[in-house]
Amino acid sequence: MGCYNSIIVDAPAERVWSTLRDFHDMSWAPGVVERCEPVGEIPPTQIGARRILNGAFHETLVGLDDRARVLRYSIDDGPDAVSKDNVQGYIGEVRVFPVTEGDASFVVWSSSWESSGGGVAEFCSPIYQALLRSLRDAFA
Amino acid sequence: MGCYNSIIVDAPAERVWSTLRDFHDMSWAPGVVERCEPVGEIPPTQIGARRILNGAFHETLVGLDDRARVLRYSIDDGPDAVSKDNVQGYIGEVRVFPVTEGDASFVVWSSSWESSGGGVAEFCSPIYQALLRSLRDAFA
Amino acid sequence: MGCYNSIIVDAPAERVWSTLRDFHDMSWAPGVVERCEPVGEIPPTQIGARRILNGAFHETLVGLDDRARVLRYSIDDGPDAVSKDNVQGYIGEVRVFPVTEGDASFVVWSSSWESSGGGVAEFCSPIYQALLRSLRDAFA
Amino acid sequence: MGCYNSIIVDAPAERVWSTLRDFHDMSWAPGVVERCEPVGEIPPTQIGARRILNGAFHETLVGLDDRARVLRYSIDDGPDAVSKDNVQGYIGEVRVFPVTEGDASFVVWSSSWESSGGGVAEFCSPIYQALLRSLRDAFA
Repeated sequence: MGCYNSIIVDAPAERVWSTLRDFHDMSWAPGVVERCEPVGEIPPTQIGARRILNGAFHETLVGLDDRARVLRYSIDDGPDAVSKDNVQGYIGEVRVFPVTEGDASFVVWSSSWESSGGGVAEFCSPIYQALLRSLRDAFA
Repeated sequence: MGCYNSIIVDAPAERVWSTLRDFHDMSWAPGVVERCEPVGEIPPTQIGARRILNGAFHETLVGLDDRARVLRYSIDDGPDAVSKDNVQGYIGEVRVFPVTEGDASFVVWSSSWESSGGGVAEFCSPIYQALLRSLRDAFA
Repeated sequence: MGCYNSIIVDAPAERVWSTLRDFHDMSWAPGVVERCEPVGEIPPTQIGARRILNGAFHETLVGLDDRARVLRYSIDDGPDAVSKDNVQGYIGEVRVFPVTEGDASFVVWSSSWESSGGGVAEFCSPIYQALLRSLRDAFA
Repeated sequence: MGCYNSIIVDAPAERVWSTLRDFHDMSWAPGVVERCEPVGEIPPTQIGARRILNGAFHETLVGLDDRARVLRYSIDDGPDAVSKDNVQGYIGEVRVFPVTEGDASFVVWSSSWESSGGGVAEFCSPIYQALLRSLRDAFA
C-alpha cells in the first residue's frame, strides 16, 4: 500500500535537494506547513531527528542519503487517518532525480505503511500534492 | 561506473512504456536507429530476446517489468568503446516514472558495466541523449 | 503493506535462480504446489505468462530479470484473502542474492498490495514460508 | 563497476544493524581496523560524519537508513587503488537483511565508483571479505 505523487521542478537537482534535506526547515512550503517545530536535541540531518508539523504531525527522520538524494521519515502520530490508532508503520519518502535534458529535477513524494484502518492514501495524497506544488513554486 | 541521462516526455507513463517495451521495435527513434533486426526466434517481450541495432550493436533483453516499467539489456558486442574487447558486463536500463502533476513521464536511460578499457560513458551518453530526444519528439 | 520471508539455500545463486525463473514449473515445491497449470500460449519466461496454482491461484508474470535474479507476478484472483474482492494490486516478488562467503544463496519472497479488506499477510506468509522451505530442501 | 561480497551472520538483523550503524565504532573488526578516528565534530549517525581508518582511509558518511538498514559512505582518499588520484566517486554500501527462517542476518558489503585507473575491485574485495568475517565472528 502506499501513495505516489510527483512533479517537475525547474532547478538543478542539487539545489532542490539542498532545500529538502533539512528536516527542521519547511519554510519552502508556506500555506501548507505553517509550523515546523524541532523536538529534542538531534540536529536535522542526523538520523532520529524529530519534528512536529502544524502542531499535529509527529515525525522522525529514519533515513537520509545525500548521493541518492532521498529522505525518509516515519509518522509516529497525527490527525485523522494518520493517527497511531489508524495506521502502523507509516514511512514517507522524498526523492530527487536529475532531469539531464534541461537541467531540471523530478521529485517523487511517496509513502507506504504496514497496516491501517483505511483512508490513508486519500488523506495523504492531497497533502503531498500541495507540498510538491509549493516546492515547484519556490523555484519558479 | 555508468552513465545517466533523463528527459521529460509529454505523455502518460503507460503510453510511453508501451512504446518502449517492445525490444524489436525502435521505429520511434528514426535518425538514431535506422535498423533494428531481431536475431533468433525469441519474441521481443521474452527474456533472452536478441537484436542488432544499425548492424553494429548486438543486444540481449535481460530484464523486463511491466509494473515497474523497466527494461534492461546487455550489449554483447558493438563498435568502438562498446566492443566486447573494451567493455565487460555492460547493462543498459530504461525506466519510466509517472509525473502525476501534469500526467507526463520522466524517463531515465542509464547504464553500468563491470570493467572497461575506458571511454564507455563518453561514447554512450550522446547516443542515449539522442534516443531520449527522439522519444520526446515522438510524443510531442 | 506487504509480507516478507527469507531463507538461506545451500547452492550457488545461478543454480537456485535457474530453478525459480520458470513460471510454469513449480515441481521443486511438492506438497505445497500440487498443480501448476499454464494458461494461454505465452511461454514461461515471457512477460504476460499465466498460470493457475492448485486450481485456485490465478497468476500472471509481470517482471523477470536474469541479471538481478528477480521474478515478479500478480495474483489476479485466488482463494480467501487473495480473492479479487478482498485484495487489489497484489504483486509477489522472488529475489535471489549470492552469498559469496560459502557459495550459497539468500532468497527473499515478498509481496505488496494496493488495498485490501485485511488478512492478506496472515494468509500469504505461511504459504511463502512453506515454499521457501521446499526450495531449501530441494537443494539440500 | 563495483565489488560485491556477502555473508550470513547468526544474529537478528536489528542486533547486527545496531552494531554496524555507528560510523565511529569499528571495534567489531579487530585485526582489520586497528584505528577508527573521528574527524571533525559531526556525530556518527549524522550525514557528513567523517573518519580515518588505520590512518589511511578517509571516509565520509553519505547515507544512513534505520528502516532499510543501509549505510553508505564515500572514500575521499586512501592508499593504493583507492587514492583520490586513482579512483573517483567511490561509494561503499553496507546493508543488512533479515533471514526470517532461523532469525539470522544476510549482510552485503558492496561498492561502486565512477571512474578509476584500475585495480579497485581487486584491492577492496579482500578487505570487505575480512570485515564481513569479523562481523560474523563477533556474533558467533
